[in-house]
This record gives sequence, structure tokens and C-alpha cells, in this order.
Amino acid sequence: MDTICIFITGGTFDKTYDEIRGSLTFKDTHLPEMLKLGRSRVEVSIRTLMMIDSLEMTEADRALVVHSCAQCSHSRIVITHGTDTMVETAAALARGVIGKTIVLTGAMIPYAFGSSDGLFNLGSALSFAQVLPAGVYIAMNGQHFSWDRVRKDRDTGVFEATS
Amino acid sequence: MDTICIFITGGTFDKTYDEIRGSLTFKDTHLPEMLKLGRSRVEVSIRTLMMIDSLEMTEADRALVVHSCAQCSHSRIVITHGTDTMVETAAALARGVIGKTIVLTGAMIPYAFGSSDGLFNLGSALSFAQVLPAGVYIAMNGQHFSWDRVRKDRDTGVFEATS
Amino acid sequence: MDTICIFITGGTFDKTYDEIRGSLTFKDTHLPEMLKLGRSRVEVSIRTLMMIDSLEMTEADRALVVHSCAQCSHSRIVITHGTDTMVETAAALARGVIGKTIVLTGAMIPYAFGSSDGLFNLGSALSFAQVLPAGVYIAMNGQHFSWDRVRKDRDTGVFEATS
Amino acid sequence: MDTICIFITGGTFDKTYDEIRGSLTFKDTHLPEMLKLGRSRVEVSIRTLMMIDSLEMTEADRALVVHSCAQCSHSRIVITHGTDTMVETAAALARGVIGKTIVLTGAMIPYAFGSSDGLFNLGSALSFAQVLPAGVYIAMNGQHFSWDRVRKDRDTGVFEATS
Repeated sequence: MDTICIFITGGTFDKTYDEIRGSLTFKDTHLPEMLKLGRSRVEVSIRTLMMIDSLEMTEADRALVVHSCAQCSHSRIVITHGTDTMVETAAALARGVIGKTIVLTGAMIPYAFGSSDGLFNLGSALSFAQVLPAGVYIAMNGQHFSWDRVRKDRDTGVFEATS
Repeated sequence: MDTICIFITGGTFDKTYDEIRGSLTFKDTHLPEMLKLGRSRVEVSIRTLMMIDSLEMTEADRALVVHSCAQCSHSRIVITHGTDTMVETAAALARGVIGKTIVLTGAMIPYAFGSSDGLFNLGSALSFAQVLPAGVYIAMNGQHFSWDRVRKDRDTGVFEATS
Repeated sequence: MDTICIFITGGTFDKTYDEIRGSLTFKDTHLPEMLKLGRSRVEVSIRTLMMIDSLEMTEADRALVVHSCAQCSHSRIVITHGTDTMVETAAALARGVIGKTIVLTGAMIPYAFGSSDGLFNLGSALSFAQVLPAGVYIAMNGQHFSWDRVRKDRDTGVFEATS
Repeated sequence: MDTICIFITGGTFDKTYDEIRGSLTFKDTHLPEMLKLGRSRVEVSIRTLMMIDSLEMTEADRALVVHSCAQCSHSRIVITHGTDTMVETAAALARGVIGKTIVLTGAMIPYAFGSSDGLFNLGSALSFAQVLPAGVYIAMNGQHFSWDRVRKDRDTGVFEATS
């Protein structure tokens, strides 16, 4: 089995609660803990690129994501990402990376809240990344979408296919 | 997107704690609750075939699973199953059902324990079921195995490829 | 056993995550769910006075809390409250209500995060309210403090006795 | 504030799931983790006396509990205990220990299940132990009972006062 490269960029997935300030914040990623909880035996290489809300992702940040995927020595990649601009980053990846299977995923509820869709999505994204042909995909809500045929419905928080 | 047929047979996945007797038991399946928690938008048809420990699964039980998969009007199927005899049921399905993608999955920790690998495995199994070609597979630990090339290591609880 | 009057004012205790906006907010109180989870058999009468961050509590809000405690037909009262101004409200209650046992409590982590100190504090506050003599108290961190001998250490989030 | 002595005897409180055998078992106590989660600042001294189902508690085990409470240098004690024979142990303590405040508590659901009444009961028991006069008590369901005026209703799992 090929190693899967996991790049972390933050997003709701990794939001945590700062109990001194009483607000949401980012500290360390929960990904290794989630893989342990899921008893994952998939060979992965994890690297945190940034830890930000995807609404604050700049073009420079996005270029770093593209560059990291292009440079990575593995051809199967999972990226955890905020849902608000996931489609934009997917488009940038489709323009900048060729011949790799890249799956972006995220969460609507922080994993730290104990009732997250993140664990479900992570199992889903890792699985799609192992079997889909080269291309850029979004894996959310148990489904996968090609990067150029998906949008997030801001009112419901659901990803859906565009015609 | 095709509807996926989900058959429930019990297993650790659905074990619950009987607080009057102080022991593990089966009541209703947690599957709908898990799909809701995962914010799954995959079209599914759920049917509970039995609610048992897979060590107690008889040949008649196994025949019912095979029959249900053969009769089901959909060609993509996920089965939740105890891990102890999952490989035996997979072999029976390979002998009895042709031309369908069948993915068996389970859990090492009951979902009701709040720290289950079940949610991760469910996301994984639903994803593999959508993209793998016809065949019978086991999806555990984030990986998938063809039914005839897998064993459960009873000492570690991990599923691994056989050569 | 006397009925205990529970007044809800919001605070971290009841913060929830708005998955569409990606921010913390207030919806309904989690108190009945928490009492059920704790299998509480204490006779209680629950009333939500407001649902706010205690930093935004005005003098009018505080007057409503005092008035509600004075008017309540029971002599034992628990108040859930944000921790930032809990001491101020306790002082207002000490000035305005006589002859009742009033226990304020709260949480450092929202209950909805699944890893909250709120359930522990609720068990503690309800217990202190049943046995302490008339007076105004703060119950946090498993301890109780008289209203005029406690401060919150803003750096650590811990309540401690003042000399 | 006086140090509270906590004696652990096992019970549902500390049951855990053995994922290799698929059954309930005892390993280490969850008590330190629970106190940390509750952000408890109560000074405690914790000692595990045994780790058993209270239905299997022998007279020798019970004598050890009594002896430990009598010898302990602190006058306020909390004991975690299975609920099935909690009342018997309380009676043995009332006969064997004088002049101390002893509070027994337990849980209907294992803490490891993530939805336990244990955290609520622990907050309650620690609080009662700080303020009740010398005597032997059971703290369950948010209430406290004198050792000689309580029974467990085996059908509902609830502790109730006897007349």
C-alpha cells in the first residue's frame, strides 16, 4: 500500500476552545489523535502547513498548499481544510498539480466538541484517496465530488454537485 | 448517485450497556444516529437483519445475509458485522452473490462508548462501496481488503493482508 | 426533600457551536439534558432568565436575577452563570436576598464540547445547595466559597479564596 | 480546606471495554482523569483498594475498606463503589468507623462510555463530603442518604429513601 500524504491547513476540523479567553482558537492539530481513535492502519505522512480559518487563507497560503502537493514524493494526498474556501483551493490545485489523487476534506463541527463529523469525513477521505484515479476531489458528507462540479450551500452547510 | 443498501447484523458496532444488569447487550442499531452525526448525504436504504455477536452467527444467519444481498435491488452494499467471523461471512458472500460491490465493516469499540472507531470505519466503508468494482471486501482500519486476502489477528484485533 | 429552584443565565455552560456561521452562540439550555445524563433525582424547578455571556450582563439583568431569587417560593437556589462576573452577581444577591441558600456555578468549557467541567460542577452545586446554611456561595472546581471571600484568577481560570 | 481521602473499589464507575475479548473488564481507575476533567481543586489523596464488581466483594474485601477508612489520617472520605452492594458496605462502615464523614458513590454507566453519570456523582459526593457532619452516607442521583435509610431499587437502578 502506498503512503498517503496528509497536509493540515486548519479549518473547523481543528478548532479548539480557549477556556481562558472563552473563544474558539487553533492550537495543535487533532489528526494523529483521530487516526488513533479510528484505529487507522493506513501508512501516512502528516505535515501541518498552516492552522487557520479558511476565510483568512491568502493567495500566498494557497500557493504553499499547491507547492507542497506538487513537491510531495507520494501520489495520493489528503488535505484537511476549512469548508468556506475549500472549492477555491481545489481549483488552485487542479491548475497547479498534475497526475496525483488529491482529496480535500473538513468538518462542520470541531472534532474537539466530541460530536464531530470530522472522524466520519476523515475515514471517507482516506478511503477515496486510496482508490480514486488522479484528480482533485472534495470529500464531504460521505460523498466525493470532482473539484469543478461542486459548491457549498452556505445556508445549509452542505456540499452539493453542480450541473 | 446510486442508493447504497446497508444491512445491519450487530457486532461490537452496536453493543450497548444495560445499566440495570450491568452488562453488554444489543438494543436498537446506532446506524441512523451515526449517519446523522457524520452529516452523511449518501442515499441509503437501511435494514436490520439480525442483532447478534458474530461468534453466535449460524449458517442459517449467514444464508440470510447472502440471500438479502442477492435480492437487494441495489448493486452497492455495506454490511455492519462483528469482527470475529467477518471473514467467514465475506467468503459466503463471494460464493453466493455475483456482480455487486459488497463492503463489510465493523468496530473494535462500541459506538455507544463515545470513543469508537465505528464512525471512522462507517465513513470509510461507505466511500469504498461507492467506488470499488464488483467484489466482496472488508473495510477496517481505514483500509480495504479483498475477501480472500485478509485475516483478523486475534491478538491485536487488527485486520491484515494475507499473502 | 425540598425542591431546588434552578435559574439559568447562560455563560460558557450553555455555549453551543453554530455550524453555519462557525462561531460560538447560545440556543437552548443544556440543563435538562445534563440532569438526565447525571440521573439526577433532585426535585427541581428550572427557569431560564436570560442566555448571555456574563461580560454582557447589565445592572438590569442582575436586578432580574436578584428579583427572581427573592420572589421564588423555594429557599434553596442554584444559578448557572458565566464565570467572568459571577462574583459581582453573587455580591448583588447577598445585598438583595435574605434567608436563602443560593449557589452560583458555571463552567470553563461548554457542555456541548463533550468534555466539560459543567456536569461535575452541576453535581457539586446541587449538592452544596441542599446542605449549606442560608447565604450566597460560588461552587466551582469542586469547592464552595462564600460570596465575599472569592475571586476568579483570570490567568488560570480558577476560583480561589481571598483572605 | 481539609484533604479528602478517596478510596477506589471498582464498580461500574471504572468498568472499561476490552477490545480484544469484546467484554467489560477493569484496568486502571479513571478517577484522576475525571477530577482533571472536572477541573477539581479539592485536595485529595487517592488510593485504589481493589478493582472489582461489587457483587463479588467478600467479607475480607469489606473489612479492608473499613480498616482503610479507620486508619486514614483524614476525617472526610469518599469511596467509589459498585451500586449493587453499596448499602452493605455502608452498613459495615457505620459499625466499624466512628467520627468521620464517609460518602459512598458510584455510577450506573461506566465513565469510559462517555455518557456517564459518574462525573455528576463524583462532583456531588466530593461536595457532600466537605459539608456533612460525621456519619456514613450514600450519594447517588444528586441526593444523599444516611446509610440506614436507603435502598437501591433493582428494577429502576435508582437509590431511594426507606421510611
